[in-house]
Amino acid sequence: MKRTEITDILQSPQIGTQVLIKGWVRAFRSNRFISLNDGSCFNNLQCVVDFEKFDEELLKKISFHSCIAITGQLIESQGAGQTVEVVAEKIELLGECSPEEYPLQPKRMTLEYLREKAHFRMRTNTFSAVFRIRHAIAFAVHKYFNDKGYYYMHTPIIAGSDAEGAGEMFRVTTIDIINPPLKNTKLDEWADNFYQEIEKAINNSDQLHLRKINSFLKKTIEGLTLEKLVKARPSEIKELLDHPDISKINNLVREVYVIVRPKIFTIGNSNKTFLKDNLSQKLRQVVQLKKDYRRFGLWYQYKEKLFPSLKLTFYNIRPVNNYNQLSSESELDFSKDFFGKSTNLTVSGQLQGEIAALALGKIYTFGPTFRAENSNTPRHLAEFWMIEPEVAFFDIFDNMDLAEDFVKYLINYILDNYPDDLAFLDERIKQAEKNMKQELRRPMSLIEMLRFVIKNDFERITYTDAVRILQNSKPYKKGRFEFPVEWGKDLQAEHERYLVEKHFKKPVVVRDYPKAFKAFYMRENDDTEPGKETVAAMDILFPFIGEVIGGSQREERHSVLLERVKAQGIPEEELWWYLELRKFGGCPHSGFGLGFERMVQFITGISNIRDVIAFPRATGTAEF
Amino acid sequence: MKRTEITDILQSPQIGTQVLIKGWVRAFRSNRFISLNDGSCFNNLQCVVDFEKFDEELLKKISFHSCIAITGQLIESQGAGQTVEVVAEKIELLGECSPEEYPLQPKRMTLEYLREKAHFRMRTNTFSAVFRIRHAIAFAVHKYFNDKGYYYMHTPIIAGSDAEGAGEMFRVTTIDIINPPLKNTKLDEWADNFYQEIEKAINNSDQLHLRKINSFLKKTIEGLTLEKLVKARPSEIKELLDHPDISKINNLVREVYVIVRPKIFTIGNSNKTFLKDNLSQKLRQVVQLKKDYRRFGLWYQYKEKLFPSLKLTFYNIRPVNNYNQLSSESELDFSKDFFGKSTNLTVSGQLQGEIAALALGKIYTFGPTFRAENSNTPRHLAEFWMIEPEVAFFDIFDNMDLAEDFVKYLINYILDNYPDDLAFLDERIKQAEKNMKQELRRPMSLIEMLRFVIKNDFERITYTDAVRILQNSKPYKKGRFEFPVEWGKDLQAEHERYLVEKHFKKPVVVRDYPKAFKAFYMRENDDTEPGKETVAAMDILFPFIGEVIGGSQREERHSVLLERVKAQGIPEEELWWYLELRKFGGCPHSGFGLGFERMVQFITGISNIRDVIAFPRATGTAEF
Repeated sequence: MKRTEITDILQSPQIGTQVLIKGWVRAFRSNRFISLNDGSCFNNLQCVVDFEKFDEELLKKISFHSCIAITGQLIESQGAGQTVEVVAEKIELLGECSPEEYPLQPKRMTLEYLREKAHFRMRTNTFSAVFRIRHAIAFAVHKYFNDKGYYYMHTPIIAGSDAEGAGEMFRVTTIDIINPPLKNTKLDEWADNFYQEIEKAINNSDQLHLRKINSFLKKTIEGLTLEKLVKARPSEIKELLDHPDISKINNLVREVYVIVRPKIFTIGNSNKTFLKDNLSQKLRQVVQLKKDYRRFGLWYQYKEKLFPSLKLTFYNIRPVNNYNQLSSESELDFSKDFFGKSTNLTVSGQLQGEIAALALGKIYTFGPTFRAENSNTPRHLAEFWMIEPEVAFFDIFDNMDLAEDFVKYLINYILDNYPDDLAFLDERIKQAEKNMKQELRRPMSLIEMLRFVIKNDFERITYTDAVRILQNSKPYKKGRFEFPVEWGKDLQAEHERYLVEKHFKKPVVVRDYPKAFKAFYMRENDDTEPGKETVAAMDILFPFIGEVIGGSQREERHSVLLERVKAQGIPEEELWWYLELRKFGGCPHSGFGLGFERMVQFITGISNIRDVIAFPRATGTAEF
Repeated sequence: MKRTEITDILQSPQIGTQVLIKGWVRAFRSNRFISLNDGSCFNNLQCVVDFEKFDEELLKKISFHSCIAITGQLIESQGAGQTVEVVAEKIELLGECSPEEYPLQPKRMTLEYLREKAHFRMRTNTFSAVFRIRHAIAFAVHKYFNDKGYYYMHTPIIAGSDAEGAGEMFRVTTIDIINPPLKNTKLDEWADNFYQEIEKAINNSDQLHLRKINSFLKKTIEGLTLEKLVKARPSEIKELLDHPDISKINNLVREVYVIVRPKIFTIGNSNKTFLKDNLSQKLRQVVQLKKDYRRFGLWYQYKEKLFPSLKLTFYNIRPVNNYNQLSSESELDFSKDFFGKSTNLTVSGQLQGEIAALALGKIYTFGPTFRAENSNTPRHLAEFWMIEPEVAFFDIFDNMDLAEDFVKYLINYILDNYPDDLAFLDERIKQAEKNMKQELRRPMSLIEMLRFVIKNDFERITYTDAVRILQNSKPYKKGRFEFPVEWGKDLQAEHERYLVEKHFKKPVVVRDYPKAFKAFYMRENDDTEPGKETVAAMDILFPFIGEVIGGSQREERHSVLLERVKAQGIPEEELWWYLELRKFGGCPHSGFGLGFERMVQFITGISNIRDVIAFPRATGTAEF
């Protein structure tokens, strides 16, 4: 017999037919009524069991969240609370769920507790509702854009440039962290250079010169030891460096003194007269060995057997003064990494989205983005999903229109299509607020709030307006804001909340922010006064969740953009293609980013962002 | 005036109205006909320019891919090739595109060349068609599943476990690669232990014992130098180690000899009589310094000023025999990394998808997945998108039905909705094949092939059938297969191609593979003979692109799964939650993965996978 899903039975029940249903037991009351849920919808289907007809052992195993299949007749319900029910004729146990061992219980569990049990939490009313709605919002995103002729772009997750500077990033690498490949350092370069020069001198010398060189090497380099150099008086060093014979080498020796105190140079037996080949070969060996030693770590490469004369010397290479040690990652040789360069997890697909918009006209992205910020808050995730439309020929006002229409569409879609899940979440908040003080409760219920947002125009103000309103506010005058309110300073969460929740009591779009604290790609407004330059940026602020959208018109003028790139110290070469977009067939264009989880939070009324994503990633959290 | 998109004009032209259109110039013929494309659809809109009415300088700048806005009247076209055209009354140049500098030219360019210019390639006919269709396939994926009641899951990109073992992975980290945090190594532990024991001995000693200890330390440890140890004869070492006074320390000293030759232990002035506190303090300093030195790298921490007596000693710490060097990443302390553990980019969302399916019933994922494999082929990407449905109560046959229905739906959706783009790609292949040998050409055109696939049932065979067919094949008998065909060995691309392209001439679903080379989570079939165990796995093989889907029924039996996990040496603790899914309310379930880019390749007929993703990531490639 073919299984029927519970949503199909509830939506168009065919009374009197035999059905086979499968799902998880939500409750088993009085050894008689099983509430079965198969995830297909919020509601359970009640199954009536005549316990005398079934094996007792089987019935004992029908417990909270055990998985069963029931065959029986669908009848009109005899009891209250449901319209139809199934009279169980056959019950099959698919998966036991021992109440003694199962970490979930059929009673109120905190969201914090359930977060630790993320492999089972989606079986609860709250989380199944949240994740059905999350799905539906995601689908509505695609439907909205597809219906309007936008093209979905998959921008790269692994980013080859860190130009956007939207925050701390995760490195993506296949480098062996223990033995990372290192760039040729100054020390390596210097040594290469030094030995090459000596080799050249040796090769170009006749026997007489060779002896001179040998004598020089003995006197200056070979004879040097760490102790001698450390103890040398300045006059002695000068004498050493001013040795008249081989001026080229002298300069190099000067560097020796500055950069390293090289006992390494006591190669071979200094009493022996070197032959050309002999000396050259030894030099090559020493250089190679020194490189290996750098590459593989100090302890690893030292081989007494190979170079008995180097016995105690390698350990003594060390910096003295100016030599910048291996203390920064700039010494790593990323050309040896998987992508031949340093790569990170993307913080935004915007820059690549612009490429597509300047070809396909209207595009959007919907993908994961990342921040390696150590913020352990209910509002932040290290991995979250973002939606970023980008539209050619749109200015900042088109952009705001799109954003407002878009989020209203999403909310409306859920109100229309997921009433049961939403009603449960609405009721959940009401119950939770019963024990709260009046001032902590929501001004309206979840569903009322959603309806309110779609029915009313968002308030649109400039940043300058916002500052004025805040400076005239009670909390400002009474000194209740923690952060200063002053033209030129960014708005803080407390300011945004005041504007949205106290002053306008609805979503607010703030635009035209000071250029100083906004990203380099935002278009500088034409009509701003010097010293008070603004950019065509806009943020949409929502009650409870704060900033849900941030967007801007993009700087399309090549020279203006280049200037800002330089001013912010962003390496131009990382943005060559972004700059070229302004040189070849560019045009005004705009876009914004919507934090998907924030939107899910707003629609579901869930307060911690970790409860609206299936398997949250945050500082110290990467389970499942 | 409000801009109209070209697709709207072409779909329902309102002859006689004024329109404002914006887009990129695809061609400007005879100084009179501009073909304008705005990305909204495949077709261009022709604009007619009376060049006498416009500034010559402006007209000069209307070049290939320059961006312009045109206002004019929409009329029925006078010429052939289009039904409507716009008589330009006003032209505005939005973005120049100097033909001298622009890297694209209005002539045939190779896909390889355009790949290097990915920031402009979407403006070409081929790539704009590909990326519109890519969008449409993605939308069709969501529509298919949403309409059927599947819930979209975002499974994590940053994976905390590497249990799946689907290939090489990218590390995600915020660790400082130059100075990575290290676990307490054996050396650290040993030193801690050693000094603690000495401290204890000192603290527990009376003055007499203290002198004894001092004398012992002087004789054994303090007096030791690298040279002495290196030169010591076995009998001398034995004598040293057998010192009768302090047996505990003796054992430790034995380790000294095995593990390190510690000039480090010549702390302080060995002629001085130590006082308790003095000695303890020095020991602590030395231990701390040694740890720091390990942590920060050899050259970094050595500070003569702090410890003049340690001057030459630190450099001499090094392993002698058994001490396992810092040669593996297991020495890294990942508890100091962002997530408190080692993390990677996900290779599949399946395992987490199963969590959701066992709660919500029917789910699918659609997200980026990663392989750090060094395969520089036209079939592989390091970052690609995958679709993974997972369904509770589905067996392998339900799974195959779903997969076949799903891919047919995708193909049908594109045939129905993107005929213009598809026709162009179809023609493109025909043109390209004109110069090819008959046997290299496709057996049918792109569109014919797509229609063929949706009209015919996929062939369904078992792996055992496949082996038999291959062993009876001409290429096998003539020894033309490179790889062996033998029950128990995996099918290679050449075998798959034979089955699909030669034998069945249509998509083939192969199921019931030998357990030996398949993943641990695939359900072992009930009816297989010992030594010839198979699993309920299935692959769907397509012409041209090979394996496009791989799936299986999942092992739902806890004990069987656990056994396989152990047999494959997968750390159980990484899979605790996956195993628990089988303990609590589990049930039979199945799922599969569809490589999204492979599907886009099949539908667009594009042969290199790097040309169906906007910004490909592969070995050495992470530009844009």
